[in-house]
Amino acid sequence: MKPILITIAGGTASGKTTVVHEIMDHFDSKDVMVICQDNYYKSQDQMTIEERKKTNYDHPNSFDMDLLFDDLKNLLSGNTIYSPVYDFKEHTRKKLEANEIHPSKVIILEGILALYDKRIRDISNILIYVESDPDIRFIRRLKRDINERGRDMNSVILQYLSTVKPMYDEYIAPTKRFADIIIPNDTKHDVAIEVLAAKIKDIIQ
Amino acid sequence: MKPILITIAGGTASGKTTVVHEIMDHFDSKDVMVICQDNYYKSQDQMTIEERKKTNYDHPNSFDMDLLFDDLKNLLSGNTIYSPVYDFKEHTRKKLEANEIHPSKVIILEGILALYDKRIRDISNILIYVESDPDIRFIRRLKRDINERGRDMNSVILQYLSTVKPMYDEYIAPTKRFADIIIPNDTKHDVAIEVLAAKIKDIIQ
Repeated sequence: MKPILITIAGGTASGKTTVVHEIMDHFDSKDVMVICQDNYYKSQDQMTIEERKKTNYDHPNSFDMDLLFDDLKNLLSGNTIYSPVYDFKEHTRKKLEANEIHPSKVIILEGILALYDKRIRDISNILIYVESDPDIRFIRRLKRDINERGRDMNSVILQYLSTVKPMYDEYIAPTKRFADIIIPNDTKHDVAIEVLAAKIKDIIQ
Repeated sequence: MKPILITIAGGTASGKTTVVHEIMDHFDSKDVMVICQDNYYKSQDQMTIEERKKTNYDHPNSFDMDLLFDDLKNLLSGNTIYSPVYDFKEHTRKKLEANEIHPSKVIILEGILALYDKRIRDISNILIYVESDPDIRFIRRLKRDINERGRDMNSVILQYLSTVKPMYDEYIAPTKRFADIIIPNDTKHDVAIEVLAAKIKDIIQ
């Protein structure tokens, strides 16, 4: 049986990861696996650390979409892949580390620009966009960056206004129209998860 | 087993009815039934035909939400109801006609303002909003009103600009935020139907 690819996109702190985790909670990890687009940021080995920090990580060009597409195609053909692992401290690909990933019945691709590349959309079976109000997304990101990443409020605001928001408006939000299903995620999304889980269960059986 | 209520809203010509029909195609009519909110326009027996024509049929007040809520509650409790039938030529309820409706496992409520009343949202198990771009909706409505209802272009435009669009913006579009799932419906919606059908199949079994 050919594996199924479910592609989930949405802006920063839209709740994509929460949606993915709650879907996963319904299934055995041998049946459903997740690929994070974040691991497919381009290698920046040839750049200094200062140059790397200036990269616009919300722009489609910062992702190695070719490699992501090839890896997904390989998984869908039943092949094992060695996915890159991104080092968010060094702002480049980890050198000696790769994730050995075996194909499973259902593959979930998750990332801010997961719906951006037409080749990836075309090999996906279900396209999902997780949508939250921009203020809610900013508040979530502000809290997360302060609490989990040791950032201060002003630097979060500066980054949000200089790249996160403009890239969202220009590249991420327009991909919503490619979605088969939009999950509004300002408060609850439990019913949407149940509906999706029913479809995945159907596929697995 | 308690029946399940799936409530589907969306603007004029958003494709709600198409979505409902395609869901129904997956099931036996004894298991899944549809209630159209349009049959719950208020009785206008006390008004002249000229007065009736002036009613704003896109405003929430033109619907008998109390009766609709009571009927749905009754169906969910396993009772048979006698739904009103609306006469769109006479612009009032048909006098000697009522639809005898027996409860089934899945009840679908469909209408422009199906997500408007909190009581109805609260007794619904899945809330769905079908969304299409406004230009696409207008084009669909224009064609339908000219081809199926013998209207001319100018009268369709006049009605659209004077009531349909302002009421959509004021009352219908804001109900999108209550949805569990939004189905974008400018072109295809087959994947969304399949996902929903899997959940309904799951409920029925």
